[in-house]
Formats: sequence, C-alpha cells, structure tokens
Amino acid sequence: MTRIGILGTGRVGTNLADKLASSGHHVLLGRRSPKERTAAPAEGAAPGISFADQRTTVRTADIVINATPGDSSLDRLTALRAELAGKILVDVSNATGDADDGLPGGLCYPGSSLAEHLQAALPDTRVVKTLNTMLFTVMTAPETLATPPTVYVSGNDEQAKKTVTALLGDLGWQSAWIEDLGDITTARATEAMILVVPHILRRHGFQPFAVSLAR
Amino acid sequence: MTRIGILGTGRVGTNLADKLASSGHHVLLGRRSPKERTAAPAEGAAPGISFADQRTTVRTADIVINATPGDSSLDRLTALRAELAGKILVDVSNATGDADDGLPGGLCYPGSSLAEHLQAALPDTRVVKTLNTMLFTVMTAPETLATPPTVYVSGNDEQAKKTVTALLGDLGWQSAWIEDLGDITTARATEAMILVVPHILRRHGFQPFAVSLAR
Repeated sequence: MTRIGILGTGRVGTNLADKLASSGHHVLLGRRSPKERTAAPAEGAAPGISFADQRTTVRTADIVINATPGDSSLDRLTALRAELAGKILVDVSNATGDADDGLPGGLCYPGSSLAEHLQAALPDTRVVKTLNTMLFTVMTAPETLATPPTVYVSGNDEQAKKTVTALLGDLGWQSAWIEDLGDITTARATEAMILVVPHILRRHGFQPFAVSLAR
Repeated sequence: MTRIGILGTGRVGTNLADKLASSGHHVLLGRRSPKERTAAPAEGAAPGISFADQRTTVRTADIVINATPGDSSLDRLTALRAELAGKILVDVSNATGDADDGLPGGLCYPGSSLAEHLQAALPDTRVVKTLNTMLFTVMTAPETLATPPTVYVSGNDEQAKKTVTALLGDLGWQSAWIEDLGDITTARATEAMILVVPHILRRHGFQPFAVSLAR
C-alpha cells in the first residue's frame, strides 16, 4: 500500500483515484478549496479515498500524481516545491491551449515539454511522465481495447520509473505494453502526441484510444 | 495504372518504387544527377521502374511522391513549382535535424509542419501528407506487423486524398487502417510523431513499427 496524492479532481484524477483505491492504495484527492466543483464522488462515498487541500495532499503522499490542467500545472506545482521535495511526481497532464471548440489546441511548450519544465523547477523531486497519450478511460482499463496499447514512461530516475511501472501494473498495464523511452527529455515526444487527439475526437467522438506502437 | 514520380532514391523512395511498380504502376525515379549514389537497383533491373532527372520526373508524373530528406524538401520542391502545378504531391518525409548519433532530432517546423509549408509554397499543387509515422519497411508491408497499424492522411483536397487512399491500398493498407485526420494543418500532429522514433530505435533497433491508434 502506497499513499498516493492526486492533484486534480476532474475526470482524470477521480478515475485514477477510484482504480488505485480499489487496488488497495490509500488515495488522497487534493482539491484547491473545499467548495471546488469536482468529478469526485461525495465525501466518504468511495472507500480508500480521502480529501484534503492540495498542500496537505502532497505533504502526506509518497507519490503525487499531477492531473491538473497542464497549461497551469507549472505554476501550481512550483508553488508546492518544498512539499514535493523527495517525492515522486507522476505527471499525466498535457499542456495545450484550447482550440475554438474546446478540444486541445497547440502545445504550450513546443520544442520542449511540461515534464522537463517541472523537473527543472523541482530539482529535488523525481518527475516521471506517463499516461498522457490516451483517452483518460484507457488509463485505468487498457485491457478493454481490441488491440494492445502502449503506455510511455519518461524520467531521469530509474528507481522512480520502477515504482511508477509497478503502479501502472496496478492500473492494468501489462509489462509488454509499457515503453520506457528514456530520460525526462523524451517526454517532449509523448506530449506532442496530444496534437493528434482533437482530430481523432472530432472524427470518432470520445471513443477509447491510445497512441500506440504497432509492431 | 498511374504514372508515379518519386523524388528521392534512398531506402524510402526505392522501397516505394518497387512495391508500386509491382502493383502495376509506371514508376519514374528522379535522381539529382545520373551519378547520384542511390539505393535503387541498377538501371533496367526492376521492371516498371525508369530513371530520370527530378524535373523530368515531376513533369511526366500524374502523382509525385516526396521521399527526399525533409530538412531540404521545401527548397527542392519550391524550385519545381511550375512542374508540380496541377499535380498531387504525396509528402512522406520528416523534417528534422540530426541528433548526435544521426537519428532524427528536433523538428524543423515546430508548431507547424513541412506539409503546410509545402502547400503554401505550391498553391497549385494538392499536397497530401501520409506514411511519415513508421519505419520505412512498414510503408509497403503493413500486414507484416503483429497488430493492426495506422496510416494517417492529411490534405485540403478530398479528391486528392481519395486518390492517395487508393494508392495506400496498392501498398497493402486496409481501409480500416487508414485515418483521414482532416486538412493539411493536421500534418503537424503526425510530423511531431517522429519525435518518438529515435527513442524507439535506440531501445529496439530497426525493428518494424508504426505509431498507431489502439482502439
């Protein structure tokens, strides 16, 4: 059992919270204020999930998952630098502007990545980028796709990547589906994959998919 | 039978030439000079394939495939603007710098794409981007992969995309594997997929793969 703090109580964060809690982890969902509108179930409705403010969430957790909107994650997490020191930060977000229809638009960090900026801003935190290349429902149910999906992992710290790889296993990811790309700079490759997502969603609607390697 | 001109006589161009010629098309391989070192078979060795200079190749062809190095394609093709007028230009290239080990590095057109620059420079040519998201061997043998691959298509002209889709069929692509993303601006999504390629090649060597949609 690991104490996992999740920042972001939208669909991505609560979906991860449910699956990780049902896998036996203690999950703390960090909201910005007690009145924040969230996609989370009512307090106490989900066993294994507690709520706290974001600072307390990070301070309490062994592993912190960033599921906040990527375009504002850098400011938000930099403000929690002291609390994040020594922790693993799993960044599953995508940093884009919005297109006119509200779907993801251009990259906030073209030629670089949010994950690299986070690692530079948080030198005492081990940042691992993963799970950012699929519809959020696939993050916790990869086995429901008809063809084997890929989840990419980027990070500088091998031990942190091992820990995150084990978490991916708890989410349903088989080891053959997990692709360790290398250090944190490789996150710019997977963050750029978000560019195809709006076109897929416009053509097919919100049907589960993952940008994967067919081999 | 279509007269297909291919610019670029490296592995990508000659691989496409062989398969298209064996599918019954007349293929003209355009080299920069008669003495250019190429991956092509000796003159006359492959039935259905002829050689010419690049200008003659474009002038003679109904469809032109750009398989020249993407980082210099814009200059090279802009110089052939008059010959390319009225033609379909199928751009399969990737425009990147080189990493220290010779594998693809950063994008030449971050936030945009080579295909968009080509379409802007060649307003009387119908540019279609495709086949740029896989190891070149997969372009002509998608059925050899263990899982269904994806080939993406981007372009402004629906009729041109239909013609190119039929060509993809000749290369072995089933219609369920072909993903029309939309207009030429969507090429920036598929051109950015090249960023993952060097990491895959460094980990796994030159094993066939295609960046695909698992669904």
